[in-house]
Amino acid sequence: MLPRGRPRAMGAAVLLLLLLVVGFFLFGRDPEYGLGTTATLDEDPYGSRNLSASSPQLLLPPKCEMLHVAIVCAGYNSSREIITLTKSLLFYRKNPLHLHLITDAIARNILETLFRTWMVPALVVSFYDAEELKPLVSWIPNKHYSGLYGLMKLVLPSILPPSLAQVIVLDTDVTFSSDIVELWALFGRFSDKQVVGLVENQSDWYLGNLWKNHRPWPALGRGFNTGVILLWLDRLQQTGWEQMWKVTAKRELLTLMATSLADQDIFNAVIKEHPHLVHPLPCVWNVQLSDHTLAERCYLEAADLKVIHWNSPKKLRVKNKHAEFFRNLHLTFLGYDGKLLRRELFGCPNQFPPGAEQLQQALAQLDEEEPCFEFRQQQLTVHRVHITFLPHQPPPPRPHDVTLVAQLSMDRLQMLEALCRHWPGPMSLALYLTDEEAQQFLHFVETSPVLSVRKDVAYHVVYQDGPLYPVNQLRNVALAQALTPYVFLSDIDFLPAYSLYDYLRASIEQLELDSRRKTALVVPAFETLHYRFSFPNSKAELLTLLDAGSLHTFRYHEWPQGHSSTDYSRWREAQAPYRVQWSADYEPYVVVPRDCPRYDPRFVGFGWNKVAHIIELDAQEYEFLVLPEAFSIHLPHTPSLDISRFRSSPTYRNCLQALKEEFHQDLSRRYGSAALKYLTALQQARSRA
Amino acid sequence: MLPRGRPRAMGAAVLLLLLLVVGFFLFGRDPEYGLGTTATLDEDPYGSRNLSASSPQLLLPPKCEMLHVAIVCAGYNSSREIITLTKSLLFYRKNPLHLHLITDAIARNILETLFRTWMVPALVVSFYDAEELKPLVSWIPNKHYSGLYGLMKLVLPSILPPSLAQVIVLDTDVTFSSDIVELWALFGRFSDKQVVGLVENQSDWYLGNLWKNHRPWPALGRGFNTGVILLWLDRLQQTGWEQMWKVTAKRELLTLMATSLADQDIFNAVIKEHPHLVHPLPCVWNVQLSDHTLAERCYLEAADLKVIHWNSPKKLRVKNKHAEFFRNLHLTFLGYDGKLLRRELFGCPNQFPPGAEQLQQALAQLDEEEPCFEFRQQQLTVHRVHITFLPHQPPPPRPHDVTLVAQLSMDRLQMLEALCRHWPGPMSLALYLTDEEAQQFLHFVETSPVLSVRKDVAYHVVYQDGPLYPVNQLRNVALAQALTPYVFLSDIDFLPAYSLYDYLRASIEQLELDSRRKTALVVPAFETLHYRFSFPNSKAELLTLLDAGSLHTFRYHEWPQGHSSTDYSRWREAQAPYRVQWSADYEPYVVVPRDCPRYDPRFVGFGWNKVAHIIELDAQEYEFLVLPEAFSIHLPHTPSLDISRFRSSPTYRNCLQALKEEFHQDLSRRYGSAALKYLTALQQARSRA
Repeated sequence: MLPRGRPRAMGAAVLLLLLLVVGFFLFGRDPEYGLGTTATLDEDPYGSRNLSASSPQLLLPPKCEMLHVAIVCAGYNSSREIITLTKSLLFYRKNPLHLHLITDAIARNILETLFRTWMVPALVVSFYDAEELKPLVSWIPNKHYSGLYGLMKLVLPSILPPSLAQVIVLDTDVTFSSDIVELWALFGRFSDKQVVGLVENQSDWYLGNLWKNHRPWPALGRGFNTGVILLWLDRLQQTGWEQMWKVTAKRELLTLMATSLADQDIFNAVIKEHPHLVHPLPCVWNVQLSDHTLAERCYLEAADLKVIHWNSPKKLRVKNKHAEFFRNLHLTFLGYDGKLLRRELFGCPNQFPPGAEQLQQALAQLDEEEPCFEFRQQQLTVHRVHITFLPHQPPPPRPHDVTLVAQLSMDRLQMLEALCRHWPGPMSLALYLTDEEAQQFLHFVETSPVLSVRKDVAYHVVYQDGPLYPVNQLRNVALAQALTPYVFLSDIDFLPAYSLYDYLRASIEQLELDSRRKTALVVPAFETLHYRFSFPNSKAELLTLLDAGSLHTFRYHEWPQGHSSTDYSRWREAQAPYRVQWSADYEPYVVVPRDCPRYDPRFVGFGWNKVAHIIELDAQEYEFLVLPEAFSIHLPHTPSLDISRFRSSPTYRNCLQALKEEFHQDLSRRYGSAALKYLTALQQARSRA
Repeated sequence: MLPRGRPRAMGAAVLLLLLLVVGFFLFGRDPEYGLGTTATLDEDPYGSRNLSASSPQLLLPPKCEMLHVAIVCAGYNSSREIITLTKSLLFYRKNPLHLHLITDAIARNILETLFRTWMVPALVVSFYDAEELKPLVSWIPNKHYSGLYGLMKLVLPSILPPSLAQVIVLDTDVTFSSDIVELWALFGRFSDKQVVGLVENQSDWYLGNLWKNHRPWPALGRGFNTGVILLWLDRLQQTGWEQMWKVTAKRELLTLMATSLADQDIFNAVIKEHPHLVHPLPCVWNVQLSDHTLAERCYLEAADLKVIHWNSPKKLRVKNKHAEFFRNLHLTFLGYDGKLLRRELFGCPNQFPPGAEQLQQALAQLDEEEPCFEFRQQQLTVHRVHITFLPHQPPPPRPHDVTLVAQLSMDRLQMLEALCRHWPGPMSLALYLTDEEAQQFLHFVETSPVLSVRKDVAYHVVYQDGPLYPVNQLRNVALAQALTPYVFLSDIDFLPAYSLYDYLRASIEQLELDSRRKTALVVPAFETLHYRFSFPNSKAELLTLLDAGSLHTFRYHEWPQGHSSTDYSRWREAQAPYRVQWSADYEPYVVVPRDCPRYDPRFVGFGWNKVAHIIELDAQEYEFLVLPEAFSIHLPHTPSLDISRFRSSPTYRNCLQALKEEFHQDLSRRYGSAALKYLTALQQARSRA
């Protein structure tokens, strides 16, 4: 497929003169059709509206040619931004893409997980450690909100692989509304001397007339914006770029003290000195919605906006009379279901990410007519996972600390504030959301006075895919992200006793547990049927409510076997922790070391998901110790759709039964005759049913 | 802006020869870049791979030129399909569009409301009555699933306005993945004689070798598919199209008895006879995913698919090894938030639909810093409304019939089955959903044995927009769509007595109400706090539960004034309907004539939305009559996020107070001193608070 480029290149050289003539007639109406839209906002003050910039016929690279994109990304918020940018890129692209991400440890942690689970064909992602680059730019005083990270764009030519001849560099706050291949093709218009492609800055900043005593860095006319850069890397190396920008920056810093706009000031100062280096790009490739933007001069003329740049610190809230229009473009990708971008590029080789082909085969082998097809499909589904979706402060290392682990979907969001009031310690929560809901969730947390201050709560978004709720996959995501030695495995509709967090830590210390000891501390579970009730402040108050019938032991009427082993009557009187034995269908809420067994992901939808986990603990010889002062209370809520389906569908119940049996077969394989008691218990339960 | 086309046209004529040469060199690699992708699946059996079809340089029409699209659409399901198609069209389009919709009464009713409330700039929609066209094609025997409607494409040249020279005709089951202007530009490649542009049929159907004794209509080679047609209308008229197709059809029907593929058979038969009429289009403009499709030969080569055609009766469930890829393209628009398409076309005149500019101004005048800004904005929001989202059988006219009216969002979906069991009569339900949720809802109904058979339940989707729940706007949508003389204004979390539907109709008859009499029949409201309880089969059973404390009168503890006027102690003993008086904060569930006052849409979010409606009824001198055997029971559910916000936010409560006061000012304006009692009541309530 690839070698076709060569005759094209020859043809192109021969035909360039011919095209210039053709172009004039055919594309005279051109400002209306985008590609050739003027490179400067005013008349052509420094000769940039040359033929190469306004001639519209682009020579696109061959179908399967890889395009390279570099982005600097640091922290939680930029990690969310870059995903929206990537969605817009992937939506329009028709070429394989290689993302070169220069990240801090936070962004890398988030984005590695995200891209691995996203499994987009024909997308390669490489990471570069921003920490290592800091010394290269930290000597430059900078006042811009991007901090040191903005400046890192200056050193890309020295850190990207030498094999890379060209790269497009993007800020995280841009959105594509066209195929990046058209931007890539603009490299073809560079003259021999040009090494960097940029769009003119769409504000008067560099003209120095914005306010009195405003003294910007030197720039050619309005200067250029560095939100979108075409870098011709090997030429930059040959030109001595590194030396060049450092000399310029050091000289200007003698009088200017600091950069105001980070790398952009330095790029502009270099270009002012060496104007032949820059290839001006059409304005539509970087429509800048900064405060006091002049972008209107660009987009009112153009038919087709290619890249929107939210380069105001206000981002989407920037004031602009067409803000709604641009926001809609951005919101398109903010809420876009990322799994729809798992699209192959027909006819391109080697495009599948690790595991994708095996997964496709496994899915293809499922029998759509089989009654439990939906279960099988759901179990195989790889969900996109965005860990630490919001800014998070990891807990300091403390030997007895406990993280509350739970999972939820949008319909339990209203539990979060109450939960935060009841549990002052770290939490790790997995949320099962659509891309659109993730944005609503973000808004919900940001506007909640209770949630917005709790940086010790880590939210991990697992994106929805498929008809059944992957409850145990969610629990495993939250569990894997817990950072303390112990975890409290809870459910979102439970509120722990106000004292539980302190009490658990004290108990762990007093019992001299250490994380190698296989102990599961049981937190007895109760429930109220009332939406409004006053939460007991002590075990004594709880017992009073229990005796008054305002509280019950959890599922006493519907599913007593789930908690009977906890032995509530003993608990009433207990003054010290006591050991209890596993019995069939036991599913207490427990505190265990973080390295405890994972939940079995085969259980999707409703039913038996915790029971299987407790069996696993018992099989691994965890000791169950009930804590005498611990309790947690279940609040009422509308039954989930999954429960409704379970209750109404015999197929659903049969499939759950099949899953249980498979689980037991696996248990026997792993634990041998020791697992016999679980199977016996299951069979007894079955014969009772 | 417009007159620029003229020099272009001249230039184009002069340069055509030049281009043919240029094109050869520049676009030799062309199969990879879509525009010139081969017009036939095999070698070129009938000369269609001519220069006009493979030369890739398109002359696009001027920026603001209107493009015309005609679509035949009938019934509920096609009305949903056409919206997805329209979203894909609007997403990529950069020109004004005029949709010419040939509809039956059902589709027209749905789509008129939808497009009016969608308020998309630069989109014009005209309707044509399919009923009037039926006689023109009903003489043609047809076996295709599209019925008579497919055949109507044949008569478009005679019914579209004579001013229309060209039109693109689309089936409802196509999805665009590119800008339709590129398709429109292909008119520019028609020779003088060509009148219809079509893509080759991507199956062997017309070769007649699919099965033994398969005898298709005559066609040129593989024939053409009519899912996407470029019609050059004035030329067709001049060619005597009407005469031509009728003669051909009548002749073929002598031996073939009926069309198998509707209009497509006839188009092909005409083209077989007059091959010079057809301009073959590149295959990417109609990638056909029929059963046994050969489309792979097209899309594996092409870089860029322009239009996907789901022309199997199985639609999205068609088996194809790349089905997932195509489904993702389609799902993109199925779940796409349609409000994001309310995007203006910069620089084009007269693009705003009726009311849009006033609305924008009103929104622009709101003060974003004002504490009740969100309320004001929500009140002004125009929601897209899709009435009768699912197939619906309107109730037969019956003078005492009652429709249950309610509204819900996704988190109350599990109420629907129970509601259907309790209310065997007609219902009109408004659902507040995102586009994505609307698809989940569709799936939910289709897979529910209870819901899928209830054709007397009309579901009206109101698409989400804004942070506050527009409860009264939703009620008004459901109310406006009720088709019986009476309506029972209920809430989704209430289950009516099993006998209520019959009892209400009998009561209306016995009380000799007629829809001019201003009577509101009160259905007393109760509540249970238990998720599982056995619903009383009679008033006697209900009273027993009440005495046992398993049931309560509705909100007895939290908001007794809401229902105290109903006078539950009198109801216990009552044998006949009795009249009650309005009192402050009264909000009973009532049965009223369909033409009752609408709900006040200013109440958004939680609070006072029904109270205001009952005041309105009282102010209009409705008589409140409590029915002695009627009852309805509220089931518990998780509090909505809006209620949580109300409880926790003083701003929210203050804004609600401001709304109440404005409501009372309006009341005084409309009812004068008669409205004084409501204001007094409000002030008393306030002083108590």
